[in-house]
Amino acid sequence: MRRRTDPEMLYPDDSRLYHPLSAVAAMSSTDWTKERCEALDASDPIRHVRERFVLAPDEIYLDGNSLGALPREVPTRLAEVIGHEWGVKLIRGWNSADWLSAPERVGDKIAEIIGARPGEVLACDSTTIVLAKVLGAALGLRPGRRVVLTTSSNFPTDLYAIAGVARLAGEIEVRRVEPAALLSSLDETVAVLCLTHVDYRTGEMLDLPALTAAAHAVGALAVWDLCHSAGAVVIGCEVNGVDLAIGCGYKFLNGGPGAPAYLYVRREHQKAAVNPLPGWQGHESPFGFELEYRPARGIRRFLTSTPQILGLSALEAALDCCADVSSEQIRAKSVQLSELFIGALEERLPHVFELASPRDPERRGSQVALRHREASAIVGALAERGVIGDFRPPDVCRLGFAPLYLRYVDALAAAEHLVAVMETGAFA
Amino acid sequence: MRRRTDPEMLYPDDSRLYHPLSAVAAMSSTDWTKERCEALDASDPIRHVRERFVLAPDEIYLDGNSLGALPREVPTRLAEVIGHEWGVKLIRGWNSADWLSAPERVGDKIAEIIGARPGEVLACDSTTIVLAKVLGAALGLRPGRRVVLTTSSNFPTDLYAIAGVARLAGEIEVRRVEPAALLSSLDETVAVLCLTHVDYRTGEMLDLPALTAAAHAVGALAVWDLCHSAGAVVIGCEVNGVDLAIGCGYKFLNGGPGAPAYLYVRREHQKAAVNPLPGWQGHESPFGFELEYRPARGIRRFLTSTPQILGLSALEAALDCCADVSSEQIRAKSVQLSELFIGALEERLPHVFELASPRDPERRGSQVALRHREASAIVGALAERGVIGDFRPPDVCRLGFAPLYLRYVDALAAAEHLVAVMETGAFA
Repeated sequence: MRRRTDPEMLYPDDSRLYHPLSAVAAMSSTDWTKERCEALDASDPIRHVRERFVLAPDEIYLDGNSLGALPREVPTRLAEVIGHEWGVKLIRGWNSADWLSAPERVGDKIAEIIGARPGEVLACDSTTIVLAKVLGAALGLRPGRRVVLTTSSNFPTDLYAIAGVARLAGEIEVRRVEPAALLSSLDETVAVLCLTHVDYRTGEMLDLPALTAAAHAVGALAVWDLCHSAGAVVIGCEVNGVDLAIGCGYKFLNGGPGAPAYLYVRREHQKAAVNPLPGWQGHESPFGFELEYRPARGIRRFLTSTPQILGLSALEAALDCCADVSSEQIRAKSVQLSELFIGALEERLPHVFELASPRDPERRGSQVALRHREASAIVGALAERGVIGDFRPPDVCRLGFAPLYLRYVDALAAAEHLVAVMETGAFA
Repeated sequence: MRRRTDPEMLYPDDSRLYHPLSAVAAMSSTDWTKERCEALDASDPIRHVRERFVLAPDEIYLDGNSLGALPREVPTRLAEVIGHEWGVKLIRGWNSADWLSAPERVGDKIAEIIGARPGEVLACDSTTIVLAKVLGAALGLRPGRRVVLTTSSNFPTDLYAIAGVARLAGEIEVRRVEPAALLSSLDETVAVLCLTHVDYRTGEMLDLPALTAAAHAVGALAVWDLCHSAGAVVIGCEVNGVDLAIGCGYKFLNGGPGAPAYLYVRREHQKAAVNPLPGWQGHESPFGFELEYRPARGIRRFLTSTPQILGLSALEAALDCCADVSSEQIRAKSVQLSELFIGALEERLPHVFELASPRDPERRGSQVALRHREASAIVGALAERGVIGDFRPPDVCRLGFAPLYLRYVDALAAAEHLVAVMETGAFA
C-alpha cells in the first residue's frame, strides 16, 4: 500500500511534472522576491491552467477552499444546457442529452481525482445528505457493531449527520475523540471510523492510509469526508482501501455555489450496501414504475431523486477544464505555495501569529490557518487590499491555496499584504 | 374551510379573471373550430404569459407536467448569477448576493402558489429527499402511532421513500390501499396519511380537503406530495389544514431539469418537528460551528446542506416570470384546455381510447391519460407530428396541459393530430 509518508509519493522525482520541493525549501529569505517567484511561475508545469478561470486582476483569491473560482467554460456550457438541451430538447433531454447518466458520468470524472475506479462514484445530492447515505450504508455493513468513531474537531455538519444517522439507526454510540486519540480508541466495537481528511479550520491532514488500515485491523469500515482534500491533495481511495467516502463539488473542484456533492462506495461493498434513502433513480428499472424497490446493480443504487442537471453540468464543465492536470501535480504545487507563504511569514512576521496548521507539509492540506485574537479584523483588512481569505471563529485567519489558478507571485504578495496589514495596524 | 367541491372555488364567477367554464362546456362539437379557439385565446386573461417561454413554433408541448418549458428569463438570470455573483463576488456572494437566504426566499414564492404562509416553505434538496424529511418529522410528531397510510397507486419513489423511512424508524407498518379505500382505512393507529394529490399516471386528483380533514378526525397528520398539482390546480395548504407537504420544481413550476424540490411544514408544527437529516444550514447558528446541533427556529431547521444556488436561481427566475398569474387563473384555464381536448376526442374518436383520467374535471389535475394497447407507438407517432407527450407503462398516453404557455388552439390541434394518427394508422 502506498503511504503518504513516503516522500516519493509527495514529491515524485520527476522534474518534467513537478517542481521538486527543494525549489522552495532551499530558498533562503532573500530568495523570496517577486523575481524569483516569477521564475517559478514561468517553469510551473500547470501554469497554463490559470487562464481557464475568471479572476479579477487586482485580487488574490485565497478562498478557493471554500468556493472555487469560476472556470471560463462554465457559462458557455450552462448556456448550451439551458438554451438548447432544456429549451429545445425539453423532456427529450433526459435521453438525448444524457441527463440520466450525468451522476455516473460526472462521478467517474471525480473518481479520477480521488483515486477511485470507474463505477465507484456518483455526483448527487448535497454533502450532508450523501454523508448520511454512506454512513447509513456503512452501519448496515457492520450489523453487530454499535460505535461510530470520529473526531471532536470534525466539521460540525459531519457531527450533526453522524448524530442524525445514529438516532435513526438506534442504539448507536458516537465516540468523539481528539485526532491523536483515534488509534487508541479503535476497538472491535467500532462499526465505522468516520473522519474528515483535511480539517476545515486548521488544514491538518489526517493520515488516511494509516487510519484506514487501523480501522480494517479491528474490522471497522473507514468513511472519509474529502471536502477539503479532493482536488488539492492525493487521496488514493483504491490503493488505500477506503471503504466509503463523500465530498463536495464547490471547493477545489470549482463546481459553483452549492454544487452537487459526490459519494464513493468501494466496488467490493456495493452489492451488500443498502441506500438508506432509496428513490426511483436508484431503482434497477426506474421507468418500470414498480411498486417495490429493487436496488440497481452497482453504484446507481445510491441515487435517490432526479439528477440536478444545472448543477451537474457546471460541475462537469469545471472538471473537464482541468482534466489534463493530475492530483500529483496539484499537490506538489500546493505544498510549495503554502511553504512559500509560511516561510515568508516566519521570516518577516515572527511571533505575530500562531500557526494553527501543521508546519510539516505532509500533515497539511492546501490551506494555512493563522491564529490571532484579531483574526476577524485582519481578514477584513486583507480583503480591503484585495486578498480574499476567510475568518473562522474564534480566532483563525484561514487562507486557502488553490493550485489550479494561484501563482507563486500571488502567495508571496499575499504574505507581503499580511505583513503590511500587521505593520500598519490597519486591522485595528 | 374552502372545499374543492364547491363549484365557486373551481370556477369563480368573475369574468375579469376567468373564462367561465361554460365557455367550453356550452360548446357543441361544431364549435371546436380553430376560429373559435382563436377567439378563446384572444380573450384569455393570461395569454400574455406564453411569450415569456421559449417554445418551438412547430411543436405542441404536452409534457410540461414532466419538465416545464424554459422561461426566457432563466438564461439571463443564470448568466448573471454565474458571471457576476459567482465569477466576481466569489465567496462574498453568500451574503451580498443573498445566496444564504435563497431556500426561504424561493420557498416563500412557492408558498403563494400552494396557499401556504410565508415562512412555511423551503426550496431545497430533491423531491424524494424532502419527502423522507417530512415523513420522518411527521412520524416524530405522532410518536405513539405506527402506521403510514398511502395508496398502492402512489408514485413509486414515494412508496420507496415511505418504505425507507419506515425501515429507519423501525416497527412502522406501511398500509397501501386503493384510493377508494382510504377513508375506511383511516383509524387511530394511523400516524401519517401520505398521499400524492394528483396521480402521476391518470391525473386523478384526490380530495385533499376531505382527506386531510378525515386524517385529522382520527388524530393523524396529512402529508401531501404536490408534484403534479402545484402550479396547475388550487391547493390551499393553509385553509385546508395540510400538515406537511413536498413538491418538485421542474414540472408546472418550470425550474428546469432536476430543479430543487420544496417542503412545507405548517407553522404550528415547526417548533416540535425534528428534521431527521440535520445539517449545518439548519442550525440556529450555522457559522458558529458548534459541535452540538441546535435546530434553527422556524422552517430553516429543515435545511441540511449548502443551498444549490444555480438550481435555486433558475427556479426563482421561473417563479418570478409568472408571479402575476394566480393559481385560480391557471386552474380555470387548465380545466378548459383539458375539457376541450377530451370533448373533441369524444366526438371524433369515440370508442378508440379508454379515458384513464376522471371525466369529471373536479377530480382531474392538468393532464389527460388515454389508455390504448399501442400507447407507446401512438406517443411516438404524435411526436413525429410535433406533439410531445409521454408514455407511461403499460398502456397510457399521458398528455399534460400547462396553462401558462398552452393555447386553446394547441389543445384542439393536439386532438386533431391524435385523430389523424389513429385514422391513418401511423402508429402501427
